[in-house]
This record gives sequence, C-alpha cells and structure tokens, in this order.
Amino acid sequence: MHRIDNLQYANWSEKIFRQMREGNVDAVHVTITYHENFRETVANVEKWNRWFERFPELIFQGRTGEDVRRAKKEGRTAIFFGFQNPSPIEDDIGLVEICHTLGARFMQLTYNNQSLLATGCYEAEDTGITRMGKQVIKEMNRVGLVIDMSHSAERSTLEAMEVSERPIAITHANPSFWHKALRNKSDDVLKALGQSGGMLGFSIYPHHLKDGSKCTLESFCGMIAKTAELMGVENIGIGTDLCQDQPDSIVEWMRVGRWTKEIDYGEGSASNAGFPPMPTWFNDNRDFGNIEKGLLAAGLSDSEVAGIMGENWLKFYDKSFGPV
Amino acid sequence: MHRIDNLQYANWSEKIFRQMREGNVDAVHVTITYHENFRETVANVEKWNRWFERFPELIFQGRTGEDVRRAKKEGRTAIFFGFQNPSPIEDDIGLVEICHTLGARFMQLTYNNQSLLATGCYEAEDTGITRMGKQVIKEMNRVGLVIDMSHSAERSTLEAMEVSERPIAITHANPSFWHKALRNKSDDVLKALGQSGGMLGFSIYPHHLKDGSKCTLESFCGMIAKTAELMGVENIGIGTDLCQDQPDSIVEWMRVGRWTKEIDYGEGSASNAGFPPMPTWFNDNRDFGNIEKGLLAAGLSDSEVAGIMGENWLKFYDKSFGPV
Repeated sequence: MHRIDNLQYANWSEKIFRQMREGNVDAVHVTITYHENFRETVANVEKWNRWFERFPELIFQGRTGEDVRRAKKEGRTAIFFGFQNPSPIEDDIGLVEICHTLGARFMQLTYNNQSLLATGCYEAEDTGITRMGKQVIKEMNRVGLVIDMSHSAERSTLEAMEVSERPIAITHANPSFWHKALRNKSDDVLKALGQSGGMLGFSIYPHHLKDGSKCTLESFCGMIAKTAELMGVENIGIGTDLCQDQPDSIVEWMRVGRWTKEIDYGEGSASNAGFPPMPTWFNDNRDFGNIEKGLLAAGLSDSEVAGIMGENWLKFYDKSFGPV
Repeated sequence: MHRIDNLQYANWSEKIFRQMREGNVDAVHVTITYHENFRETVANVEKWNRWFERFPELIFQGRTGEDVRRAKKEGRTAIFFGFQNPSPIEDDIGLVEICHTLGARFMQLTYNNQSLLATGCYEAEDTGITRMGKQVIKEMNRVGLVIDMSHSAERSTLEAMEVSERPIAITHANPSFWHKALRNKSDDVLKALGQSGGMLGFSIYPHHLKDGSKCTLESFCGMIAKTAELMGVENIGIGTDLCQDQPDSIVEWMRVGRWTKEIDYGEGSASNAGFPPMPTWFNDNRDFGNIEKGLLAAGLSDSEVAGIMGENWLKFYDKSFGPV
C-alpha cells in the first residue's frame, strides 16, 4: 500500500521531510508556484534541487508513478511539483513542455481569478475556457501535465473536462454538499469528474471543512464515504493542502500576489485573516494514520481505504504523467 | 559503428535533418546558445521541441549515450544541446542543474571574451578560472554537464582541466601546430587534454583549417593522424562546426552578440567578413564518408577510424552525461 498526499505547501524544512518519513508518506505533490512567472518558478525549482542535494536520504524528485514505488522501496519520499496558477507558462505555450521537463506534473488553469486560460472560482462571471486555454489543454494532454481545477469556477471546470482528452484532477477541495464554500465543488462537477476518470483530493484546509477547525474526523470521513458513492471510490484520494509552519504573510501572498494593492481575504475575513488552526486529528505528515482509521470506522473496506490513501493517485500518476 | 558530429550550428530545416539521415549521422551536438540569457535559451529549446514534434521520424532529443545507440537502431538522429557561452546560467549557479535537466550536455566557459567563469581566447590577458568559475565547474561535474573550452584562452583551459574532477572537452578546434589561429590549441593543451581523458573534436570551419577553404582532405586527415600520436587516438573525434545555410548576419551575431557596438571580425576580416566557403570535401551531413576514407588513406586502422568517427565520443557521452 502506498500513501500519497496530493497537495501540500509547507514551509519546507528538514523537520517536515523527517515527518514525511515518520508518517510513511511515499509521495507528496508540492505546490512550487502561486503567482510566480517562469523565471521565478525556475528559482523555486532551484531551491528544491538544493533540498534534494542536502537530504537525499529523505526525499528525491518524482517524475513518474514508478518513482512512488521506488520511494517506498527505498524508504524515501518522492516529491512531485505542481503550480496553483498558470503564471509559469506566461503567454508562451512552449513553456508547457519546458515546465513538464523540469518536473511539473499538475497545473491549475486558474487561481481564484480569471487567467489567460479560464475563470477562477471568485470571479462574478464564468466565461469558461479561453482560446489560449483550449490550446494549452491540448498541449498539457500531449506532454502529460495534469489539468488541476481546484480553484476554478464551475463552468470552466466542466468545460475543462470536455475539452481535455485525458482525465483531469481537482487536487484539493471538498464537496459543497458537505460544506458550502466557493472553493468546494458541486455534485455536477464531482459526478462529471468521476465519470471522466478524474481524481478529487480531499482538503483539510479548515476553510474547506464543515465546522472549520472544529471539524471532527467522523464528519470528514463520513463525507468521504458519501463522495465515494457520488463519484466512485476509485476517483478519490487525499490532497490535504497542508501549509505547515507558514507565517500568515504567506496566506496573504497566496490571496493577493501582485494582482491587487488591496487586501483580499479569500476564504478568511478581516477578523480571521491568517491560517486557521488545523483540526486536532491532522497537524502534519505523521497523522495520516488517523485518517486511515477514520475511513475504516466510516465503513469503507481495507482495499477502498488503501485506494483513497494512495493507490488511486498512484494509478492516476501511472496513466497521466507522460505522453499517451 | 556510430557516427557523431560533436558540433554544428546550422540554419536548421527539414532538409538538413534529412541530410543527417542520408549521412547516417547517429548524433549531433548542436549549439543552442551563443549569447542568449536563460530565458532566451529556453525559447531556443522550445524551438527545438517543435522540430522534435514535427519530425519525429528524423530526430529526437538525446540525453545519454544510450540515446545514440537507440538513434542508430531506429534510423534517427539524436540531437544533444550545448551552449557556446555560459550566458544561459547568468550569475546563478542553480541554473547549471536546470539547464542540464532541459538537456544541455556541453557548456563553454567562455566565448572569445572574458566571462564570469574564465578567459576567452581573444583577450589580451588570461587570468584563468574565476572564483565563480571554480564553483560552476564543481556543479557541472556534479550534474554531468561537460566543460567545453573550445573558445577559451590557454591558461584558463589548462586550469579548467586541473580544477575539473571529470574529463573536459574541446568540441571544435584544431591543433595550432597545423594551423596557427587564436582558436586552435597548443601541444601543451592537447597533451594535457589527452592525459586527463578529455576529447578534442576536429573543426572544419575554414578559419581553423590550414589553407582555409582550400584545405585538402589529405592535409586535414594527416593532421588528425599526427594529433592522434600527440594526445591518443581514443581522445579525438569530429566537431565540424558546420554552420550550413546560415546568413552572414549570424556570423556577426556570433562575434559581437550584444557586448559591443563596434564590429568585431573575429577570425575573419573586413574584406572577408562572412562565412567562408566550406572545403569541397565537406559541405553537409552527407559528406562524413569522405572523412572516413581520408582517415583510412592517412594510414589509420579501421577501429581507429571508427573511434574518431563516433565511438570515442560515444564512450565519452557514456561516462560524462550524468552524475558520477
């Protein structure tokens, strides 16, 4: 059984890499870009390269599903790169392949706002996939860079599934039937995602949880069981959105980047502007065992739980990360 | 037997790729940068990616020696990237690994002028490898990016061999004992290169040839036989410096880039500013057979000729293009 977390953006350190090992996490999809342009994204890859050089006994760069199996065998964690915004490709479709060569495996078409490619979940109007968006989806399909619609608006998300010839992902979000939030997804989106062979990663970012930081493990795992019925138990996994050890200035960077001079509170508010505390049952990479137990308690079978904890993402990695 | 040309900078086209196939050229090391910065170099990689996508039956990107064997088996040509200037890494040592990931396999530490790393062959004073140069050589050694000193000055070249823990290359130059030119190399350099396991690629750029465009095949191959005695027959190969179909504006770009507002004629002169005509016996990729025959006529054995035409470079690729 493999354990995969398909979204984290921690304030990376040796401590966190050691916690990944203590938690037997075989692979983590890490965000390396929120608003960075291509050159800034490359600088972020360089930072990761230095971590790979410094801590080779803990982590290495993952490029294929096979690397997850290798990680398990070698007792290390495979780190897969992803972008939460298409900003790294700027207005240059040739950068899709360049970024894939550098290791990018997931790219969001939008991050809350309208992008060159599609509409984000906070815009008033959703005009769907743009002209460039259609071209970029085709190119992402060609090279094996997965389309991620976690922060995208409803119509754009549905259109992305139609336009894409390969399954897409929503790496970190929850169903809105459980907790209404602009970032959570409708039944329509989740059904279409499951039917097209796509993947949903369940988020533990408190703003995505029913009752926020006070959300119980039972409530979270019960929601997963219901979502499995809605979209298929093979189309779901974990994408915690863990932002461990980040200062509140980072959540502000995520929300406002360089696109506004005014503060935008995103899913928070003026009185709750920073990172909310994590629920007691999930604080860091050592806590995946809690989720596993919670899923079994919610009535899911051993093999279903193994799928959700990593095998489903691994199958998806196998079929998604290279040319068809 | 494999056939490798370890330096070309043609005005690439389907015609030239087809000529590579007609000439049974299994691999070509192509220059993708003269003076370009990182982002401009990436744009050049993007151009190559489009050629790889358009002509997959003729060419593909080579990354390892194994790709040369695969090219021969599949009847295609493996294209390996190289830089004639360290400009793509700017002042950022992290870009060494990034460029290697994108496929760069050779990088000159200088192009005629002083660089951040070393001194070029046209400078009045040669101060050897710089502080940054020593760090970059170490990093190039670590990732498997080959140090190329074709356009470097004597002391810098000798110091590069001392500082580098792995063999280096002079991809395109000839011995100065045969033809005195600032770009050609002294006996001292060639002996040190051979003793350290490095490689010399013989150039057919007319300014590097005795009697220029009128150089005879006999003279060229006789020079190769003498160089084999000087530095070892396993340390030599071909690096034609073929600039097929390039307009004269390109030779000006090579020479002046953006570093001067005045014209610099390099190895040419005001009255001979453009590309000189190639010798009759080598015009394009279909003419390697002439060199092969010339080498046999010069008294080299079948296996020595096979080494010079490609096997020596292939062995060098095998040991040089990845971490030790």
